[in-house]
Amino acid sequence: MKIALAQLNYHIGNFEANTKKIIDAIAEAKSKNADIVLFGELAVCGYPPRDFLEFDDFINRCQMSINDITAHTEGIAVVVGCPIKNPKIEGKDLFNAAYFIADKKIIHVTHKTLLPTYDVFDEYRYFEPNEIFECVTYKGKKIAVTICEDIWNVGNENPLYQTCPMDFLIKQSPDFILNLSASPFNYTHPALRHHTVKANVNTYKIPMYYCNNIGAQTELIFDGGSMVYDAQGNCCGMLPHFEECIEVFDSENLKAQEAPDYTQQKYRLMYDALVMGIKDYFQKMGFKNAILGLSGGVDSALVLCLAVAALGKENVMSVLLPSQYSTGHSVDDSLALVKNLGSPHEIIPIKDAFDTFEKLLAPQFKDLPENVTEENIQARCRAVLLMAMSNKFGYILLNTTNKSEAAVGYGTLYGDMCGGIAVLGDVYKTEVYEICNYINIDKEIIPLHILTKAPSAELRPGQKDSDSLPEYSLLDSLLYQYIEKRQGPNELLALGFDKALIDRVLKMVNSNEWKRYQTPPILRVSPCAFGVGRRMPIVGKYLS
Amino acid sequence: MKIALAQLNYHIGNFEANTKKIIDAIAEAKSKNADIVLFGELAVCGYPPRDFLEFDDFINRCQMSINDITAHTEGIAVVVGCPIKNPKIEGKDLFNAAYFIADKKIIHVTHKTLLPTYDVFDEYRYFEPNEIFECVTYKGKKIAVTICEDIWNVGNENPLYQTCPMDFLIKQSPDFILNLSASPFNYTHPALRHHTVKANVNTYKIPMYYCNNIGAQTELIFDGGSMVYDAQGNCCGMLPHFEECIEVFDSENLKAQEAPDYTQQKYRLMYDALVMGIKDYFQKMGFKNAILGLSGGVDSALVLCLAVAALGKENVMSVLLPSQYSTGHSVDDSLALVKNLGSPHEIIPIKDAFDTFEKLLAPQFKDLPENVTEENIQARCRAVLLMAMSNKFGYILLNTTNKSEAAVGYGTLYGDMCGGIAVLGDVYKTEVYEICNYINIDKEIIPLHILTKAPSAELRPGQKDSDSLPEYSLLDSLLYQYIEKRQGPNELLALGFDKALIDRVLKMVNSNEWKRYQTPPILRVSPCAFGVGRRMPIVGKYLS
Repeated sequence: MKIALAQLNYHIGNFEANTKKIIDAIAEAKSKNADIVLFGELAVCGYPPRDFLEFDDFINRCQMSINDITAHTEGIAVVVGCPIKNPKIEGKDLFNAAYFIADKKIIHVTHKTLLPTYDVFDEYRYFEPNEIFECVTYKGKKIAVTICEDIWNVGNENPLYQTCPMDFLIKQSPDFILNLSASPFNYTHPALRHHTVKANVNTYKIPMYYCNNIGAQTELIFDGGSMVYDAQGNCCGMLPHFEECIEVFDSENLKAQEAPDYTQQKYRLMYDALVMGIKDYFQKMGFKNAILGLSGGVDSALVLCLAVAALGKENVMSVLLPSQYSTGHSVDDSLALVKNLGSPHEIIPIKDAFDTFEKLLAPQFKDLPENVTEENIQARCRAVLLMAMSNKFGYILLNTTNKSEAAVGYGTLYGDMCGGIAVLGDVYKTEVYEICNYINIDKEIIPLHILTKAPSAELRPGQKDSDSLPEYSLLDSLLYQYIEKRQGPNELLALGFDKALIDRVLKMVNSNEWKRYQTPPILRVSPCAFGVGRRMPIVGKYLS
Repeated sequence: MKIALAQLNYHIGNFEANTKKIIDAIAEAKSKNADIVLFGELAVCGYPPRDFLEFDDFINRCQMSINDITAHTEGIAVVVGCPIKNPKIEGKDLFNAAYFIADKKIIHVTHKTLLPTYDVFDEYRYFEPNEIFECVTYKGKKIAVTICEDIWNVGNENPLYQTCPMDFLIKQSPDFILNLSASPFNYTHPALRHHTVKANVNTYKIPMYYCNNIGAQTELIFDGGSMVYDAQGNCCGMLPHFEECIEVFDSENLKAQEAPDYTQQKYRLMYDALVMGIKDYFQKMGFKNAILGLSGGVDSALVLCLAVAALGKENVMSVLLPSQYSTGHSVDDSLALVKNLGSPHEIIPIKDAFDTFEKLLAPQFKDLPENVTEENIQARCRAVLLMAMSNKFGYILLNTTNKSEAAVGYGTLYGDMCGGIAVLGDVYKTEVYEICNYINIDKEIIPLHILTKAPSAELRPGQKDSDSLPEYSLLDSLLYQYIEKRQGPNELLALGFDKALIDRVLKMVNSNEWKRYQTPPILRVSPCAFGVGRRMPIVGKYLS
């Protein structure tokens, strides 16, 4: 039996485009003589549809897409993800479902059993869990259809659920497993997905065909990497990451190959994910041009490189906004970078705006000493100018805040924390350097001086980040343990961090929730990004 | 048996303060000869603790609070909410629990069965549902302990869950029901809570003692209104809304009284809720002083009144920020209002700042015509000045955007959309007027001219809101159906709205998700507020 995996990039709520894409893929799968073509989770409406699911009209449009798709299934079976109404009054109103359609007939509808409700996922908000387990029979094969999380309770030490759907399905002796996924990227996930698929085939001793979505949906980036494993636990094929792809596998002739090795791939994967994150944000929002403030520092340099890769050099405008405290090399380094990239730039010095605000506020401020207020005014003058350029020319502002800064609140709200999308908000400062090194691997794109000079916000004479913050290598390793690993004060102490440093850093993180609440969506590339995947009280008093 | 309801205001993660408050309440209940004192849901750590729950240290501190509380239970039973670890490896790591402690011993721990995961609630993110149903026996009485949502599957047409915990507990013939709640306010909820408690006692024919929390936790405002119902479905007592209170009821001597009538109470309740929302935000964040831009319009006038009621007139600084387009009456009306309230003000004209930005941008803007860019620059100049005052003097900026504006994106991001907390973000423009009328009921606090003139942003000569938006009465009724009632395009048409208007308004709402994503937390007073209770894709294409 020939099984096609159709790894596609959907657009949430864009039924016309999604349906066309699915129907085109069916045609391609037919032309390749596939018996079955497998799509991803909630392919019809895009994942995650969030509260759009609460509108009857939205669910009806999903059903209309299924009708359109059904009309194109002559001579082929299509397995595609779609929400469906729960006919029972009790319980949630919907199921997260997979339609099995063949020869213009709906043969079976499988409901998702395990509903991820943690990190970035909210599925129990919408869906009732499945309680009926039934394999599908097609062309003499018995098929276990599973949806994403359904296979993730196998092979991990702390299972989140009390049941594994495959434990029920395996009793019906299926020939293989299909899995429709919408599994978002983080730099640990490609390896983890292989681990999980392998754990399933090792447990149930039948092959698995696993189809993931690709494409970014605001902060979530789906990276594909769909795969086939045989009953012996061998990888027998894989679709690329971050690319649409349709590939056919012959179940009678699966050939074991080397499973991919993701060690040493972290920064390459992060780079590709961030580029796709920018590209899809712009494309799906209907934008073409980006703008950013280029400071001469490493963060804005990296954002510019990523944006140029995503949108094209002519579509990314850099604005240099020097103040009275900017060093000469900041401008020189920035100019060298835009020259290397061949992208346009403008220079708008901010001193006059700063001076005007000082004058306007003189009656209130009287002779009070300068403090962080004046630093923030500079950052906010820059934001006013960048947003004015954005409004006048339709550029979308890219935010350049990195995760280390976002964590400790080292940034000005309504200043450098502005933007449509935060490109580096899930990338620690030390990782920013690593991705820059990856970009520079063959050729010095980012001027070396940007990578070697001491980080500075340049908001007062001679300022360095290290005046206010611990060294980034130390800070980042502590933040990683606290944020990604949920290690509390005692565990951090046991890990060897200094007590005073722990108290200081955790207090900074916890007392800046209010600031992070108002920042742009952050492209998620780590196992725990700020934003929808990390929900903290603002008004609270814990480690703060 | 004497049962005390302790309706208290907790602070998330502030174990020391919460524990002291609980222990003090136990002492007071003892002094009133109570046999049992009932507290609210997750009282020990405050509700909602969100992802703090993912830290072992946080759960351990909860347990330490329970130990401290246990030491104070000689001669009394204490029923108090607290998270507890799930000893099983499978499933979520925690239960949302109620400890039943008496005479220094933990007699029973009840786990919550129904875990709200909709609107503002995320409980299945953290908690495993209960599966064991057991009444507690104390002083010869059999007691059914339930936690908040556990009683909400009774008496509604579209039950969210397949089971009702009381259906199991009632088989053990309990004498009465205790319920520990953290039920947040919206203007429909006080009446709905009585309906639900009554539906339970009517179904199970035993009395219920219902204890709710009070106090605001960022956007969520808990309003108390704890109550007792007898087995015949009569209200037998109620604690006030928005006030801490401990009251003892004698189970042998419950006296039926009139249930409260909430018709005609909407704007009084909203007013009280908003005042508590501001008050607790400042108190729990450790702030004292607020600042806001007073425009002469109705929104900022109302926010000033609410803030003065919450924080005291001397603690709320109004700043008048007239531009070249501001009308004379805007300043006059604002001055009349601050005079009526006796609160301080400053005047900072913004023209010089605006002119400076125009000059700085002249090389880029050349001779392009003025458009919304120049309007946004004005709004952002005001934000820079307000935030500078905030930074220099420690005032917290109050956001004055109303729900109608937030819905359609009528506001400037990083301009008038700035602030620490959005006071009116869940109050439609038509409701803003109603609350103003409530304030003015005995005396003209808000100058009448503010309430009678046509709304205008005054960002260009002669501008009126009605130039860009439908009349607010029409707009608000459509928004209410779409947002609160989840009515889609077809239902709206059936309700009699004009097709072109529906398309226009829904498109405005859906295409402004990116803007709302970056706004301050919004005090929630309706059944569906923007923010955590309404989760929409940003990158999407549905009705937009």
